[in-house]
Parts: sequence; structure tokens; C-alpha cells
Amino acid sequence: MNELEFIASVKRRMHSIPPCGEGIGDDCAIIPQGNGRATVVTCDMLTEGVHFRLDTTTPRLLGHKALAVNLSDVASMGASPVASFMSIARPGTLSDSWQEEFIDGYARLSERFGVPLMGGDTTASEHGLAISVTLMGCADADSIRRRSAAKVSDVIMVGGTLGDSAAGLRLLQQRPALVHELGLDACRCPVLTDAKTAGLKHLVEAHLAPMPQTLEGEWLGGRCEVHAMTDISDGIAKDLRQITDMSAVGASVELSQVPLSQELTDYCLSEGTDPVRMALCGGEDYKLLFTVDCHEVGRLTDDFRARFGYEPFAIGRITQGKGIEWLRYGSPSDETFSGYIHK
Amino acid sequence: MNELEFIASVKRRMHSIPPCGEGIGDDCAIIPQGNGRATVVTCDMLTEGVHFRLDTTTPRLLGHKALAVNLSDVASMGASPVASFMSIARPGTLSDSWQEEFIDGYARLSERFGVPLMGGDTTASEHGLAISVTLMGCADADSIRRRSAAKVSDVIMVGGTLGDSAAGLRLLQQRPALVHELGLDACRCPVLTDAKTAGLKHLVEAHLAPMPQTLEGEWLGGRCEVHAMTDISDGIAKDLRQITDMSAVGASVELSQVPLSQELTDYCLSEGTDPVRMALCGGEDYKLLFTVDCHEVGRLTDDFRARFGYEPFAIGRITQGKGIEWLRYGSPSDETFSGYIHK
Repeated sequence: MNELEFIASVKRRMHSIPPCGEGIGDDCAIIPQGNGRATVVTCDMLTEGVHFRLDTTTPRLLGHKALAVNLSDVASMGASPVASFMSIARPGTLSDSWQEEFIDGYARLSERFGVPLMGGDTTASEHGLAISVTLMGCADADSIRRRSAAKVSDVIMVGGTLGDSAAGLRLLQQRPALVHELGLDACRCPVLTDAKTAGLKHLVEAHLAPMPQTLEGEWLGGRCEVHAMTDISDGIAKDLRQITDMSAVGASVELSQVPLSQELTDYCLSEGTDPVRMALCGGEDYKLLFTVDCHEVGRLTDDFRARFGYEPFAIGRITQGKGIEWLRYGSPSDETFSGYIHK
Repeated sequence: MNELEFIASVKRRMHSIPPCGEGIGDDCAIIPQGNGRATVVTCDMLTEGVHFRLDTTTPRLLGHKALAVNLSDVASMGASPVASFMSIARPGTLSDSWQEEFIDGYARLSERFGVPLMGGDTTASEHGLAISVTLMGCADADSIRRRSAAKVSDVIMVGGTLGDSAAGLRLLQQRPALVHELGLDACRCPVLTDAKTAGLKHLVEAHLAPMPQTLEGEWLGGRCEVHAMTDISDGIAKDLRQITDMSAVGASVELSQVPLSQELTDYCLSEGTDPVRMALCGGEDYKLLFTVDCHEVGRLTDDFRARFGYEPFAIGRITQGKGIEWLRYGSPSDETFSGYIHK
């Protein structure tokens, strides 16, 4: 069974039990509190060898990422994070200092958004390291944003450049010691360095220590012109399809509008690879993907820029029909793109 | 670092972030909802080779246990379970039928108490199987029971016999195939069998598929004469010490009153081991341990029996002072007992 088959089997078997809200299907479960507010809950598990390798990251970066991926899910619901819970299975080979630094990385990101760690579990592991984080958030029920709320003629927007994380992963696969050579450790201190090194840092950091759009998500949840929202964890080719499938609409995406960082463009030029493909299929961007009433895009963009100092990017439109049409300069492209399928 | 050192390190490092309720320290975190109600949250992680071996359990029993240990934590707070979340790291070697049966075991127990599975995560694992469950519950804020609420002269009570699970574990260690020989599979069908086989079944089932005292915990939370409560996961020698330490009291326990099943007594007789030691130190009983106003024990016991058809057991008293004094027929015993310390 792959991931989707396992989830389908769980849904089928648990069908007899009345849910206490909206369960499997969105980035978070939604549980109404009964007072106009809703609790949202998300879980992400990171396992050694699948999501990370101990030799290509640092304990601080890993602690950061374990929380970041969950923060991104709560942000994508238009909600604010309230409390995190961390369960960890620790192999006996982890040193005390490794564990202290892991906790420090987790704590730094917790501090940044004021999210307390309220519980969890710690056990020994005879196999690899596994980290399971559950994050609770809350929002006014009206502010919750779902994948299923896209409307025909909405503009499709993303919160930042795409593909950087995928390029960072490829760099680490080519050169596992890169994280140490670059001196990355989630401190995000500006270090004077040459342009090429800065470019590599940007890409590797995007992969190992993504910064969730927590404040942006909360803010977008308060804007009624924002309809559907999710975060980009498996590549926009897959995550946008979740929106179109669940909203029973189609989408057309203009490939020339997909936002690419200069760092990604430079890297792909040197490697002879296509940055747009990396941006659409790579995954682990943890940027927000949302749809906006087409008459309100200008005002939303202005207000977003005034609040955050940068602009989200418009990449396409929600259409009648089904699936995603990829355009290049307005003409249909015959290229196909697909996101990451978990085993 | 062992478990306690890791938790201490987390608490130290996260100290700067204001909590949103009561965090690490009880069986569940307690998060007030602001309307006189509180949400409780618990997490437990089970890892292959540490908490279970695939050859000494069945997928249904494991699915049951993964949820049961969390239900027990919520019960011990005096709260009702609301929603579960399961994250699972699955090695590629697990067959589809294994996974279907695991889900079935989890679903049967979910159905028994009407608890929907509202989310989670599923990932591949390059190492062993790891299962991380988060359970949310809720209760009136007044009904929440804490480890820290024991009062001097309270009577100490337990919800059932102790040590059966520890004996079941020892049996499985001696004879790994026992679960299959006994035909156990969480169905709890009454099967006609001889007394010895029935005894073995009782012990092995207590270990592999403990039944949480969910309804009892909810009910005890509604009784004001119940002061402190927890569940017995690491052995009463350790779990009662959590109550005495957190309540700044002592305890005296009468060893002759520790409730032992006939099945445990028979097993220990045949093995030449001490059933009381197994009951106090073994762990994984998942029975409730609570303290009761000494003037109300009779009434509580009567009402409990009327509601559930059996009685809880009084095993000692809360005292002034510190730590636990073990008595045998009223005289201090020089034996020492300690619970399970996690690595």
C-alpha cells in the first residue's frame, strides 16, 4: 500500500464512527469549539533515511524543520498556532550535545512564533531516529481556509519562490558534507560571503530549515477575498491538483509566471536542468498556495505588501473543467508535471 | 540522556515561552477553552523492538494497544476522549493484509468508545515500524484530575489487578509464538478452553491488548471525593511516586492489599517468582490509580460497584512526609520497589 491507499483504507474502516468535525482531507483536521472558534490539528512524522539523513543536516536544523512543516500546515488553514506536542524515538547513538542542539533548534522556531511545547513522548529506538510532531492551532470558524473552496475565475497565488528546497536537496545528495562546509545551523546570521556560496546557502537552507509562512497564513485567513488555501509540500503540480479536485474545478497555470529565485536559476543553468520543472514537481517548499477573487487581487496584493514588505505571485486562474492546464506564454504546453508520491 | 533528562532539558530550554495551559508533568497537557471546559492532549509513541516485536503480537492487537495506552492517559485525567490522530512510519516489508488488520484493531477500540480518527501522517520507514498516536479529550475544567492533588489521609485506590501485563510480557519473552498458539487477536471472543490456557490468555492479553478504563475515568472525574489520579504505565512503585512527589506528600502501601489476579498468582507460583513485586514494578497495567477522601471511600466504592459491576481496591493511605513506605500486614517492610525507567 502506498500512502494514499493506506489513508483510503483507514477512511473506509473508520467510516462507522461519527466524526467530531472535518477529518482527513485537508492540511489540518478542523474541530469546532462550539463558540464560533475552531481548533485545527496537524501531525507530521519525520523518519531517518526517508525525510532526513543525520550526515546531511544538523540537529538544530532538524529540530527547526520538525516544527516548521507543522507550522506551515496550520498557516495554510488561516489559523494561528497554539501548542505543539513532540514525540521522539531516540537511538542510543545520539550524543547528549546532539540532543541539546536538536531541542535548541525546535525551541528557536517555537520562540519566533510564541508556540509553547505542551507535551509529547520520548522513547528509545532500536532502529533510526523518528520525530512525530502534532500542532494545534485555532481561528474563528469563519477564518478557516479549505482546499475545497476555490471558485471559477479565482486567481491562483503563491507566497514565495518555488523549487529552492528541491535544488537544496539535490545539492546535498551530490555533496553530503555541504551543510557543514557552509556552516549552516539555523542561526540565520548574515555572513559575508561570495555570491556563489550565498546561493548554495539559500538553496540548502530552503530545504533543511524552511521558514513557514505563519503570519501570512493568519493574515490571509482574515481576508474574505481569499477562497481556497493549502501549503506546498509535495510540489505545486500535486498540491494544486488537491485544490482543483476538492473544489471540482480546473486550473490553468502560466509557466512563465512561476516564481523562481535567482539562486535556483543560477543553479539550474550550471546543471543544465529545468528550473520550472524543479519548481513544480520538487516539493517541500512550504509556501502558501491560495486562490483569490479575481476582482480583489490588486487590493489584496497591495495590502499584503504593506503588511509583509513583499508580494505574493499570481501564477494562473481557476477554470471550469477538471485538472490543470499548463500554459507557456498563453499557449497550451504539452509538458506534464507531477508532484511527489509518498511510499 | 535518559527519558527524564531529555524532558528536563526540553523544559529548561522552552522556559521562555509562556504556556497556554498546563504542560509537561501530568498524563495529559491541559488547555483551558475559556468556557469552563478544558481540552486535554496526550501522545504516545510505540517503536518496534522497544515496545513491541512483530513476531510476538498480531497487527490487530498492536492497533488496539497503540490507541489503548492513549485512552488510558485521557481517562486518568477524568476526561472523555474526543478525537485521535495517528502517525505511522511503515517499513516496505509490511504486507497489505497486515496493515488492514492493524487498522481494524485500531478501529475496533475506536468504535468501542466512539472516538473518531481525525488525522495523522503516514510515511515510509527505512528502519522499523513506529506508531505515534495523539489523543485529544475534553472535560469540565472542574472534572480534570491531576497527579498533584493528593491530600494527607486520602485512601489510595487502584482500578483493577496489577502485574498481569508484566507476567504476559515475561511469557512472551519465554515463548514468542504464544500469541499465535493461543489464537489471540483482539476479538475477545469467549473460547472454551482449559483453565491453564485461559490463565495464559488472560496474562498475555493484559500485555498485548490492555483495556483502558475510559468510562471509569470519566465517571471518577465527576466525583469530588476523588482528588489525585493517574494511570499505571510504569508500575505503581513509580506512578505512585509521581503522585506523592507532585502533591508533596508521602504514602504507605499495604503489600497484602495489592490486588493480584488468580492467573498471576498461579503463574508466579509455577515460576517461583514474587507476584507482588511483579505487580508493583512491572508496568503497562493501564489501570487507574487514584486517591479518595478517606471519609467517602465507602460511598464511592458502592456507587462505583453499582455503575460498573466491580469494585476498585484500596491499597494504602496518603501520609505526611515524603516517598512511599511499604508495609506488610501493618509492619514496615525493608523491601524496595522501583518502576520502569525508560532509556
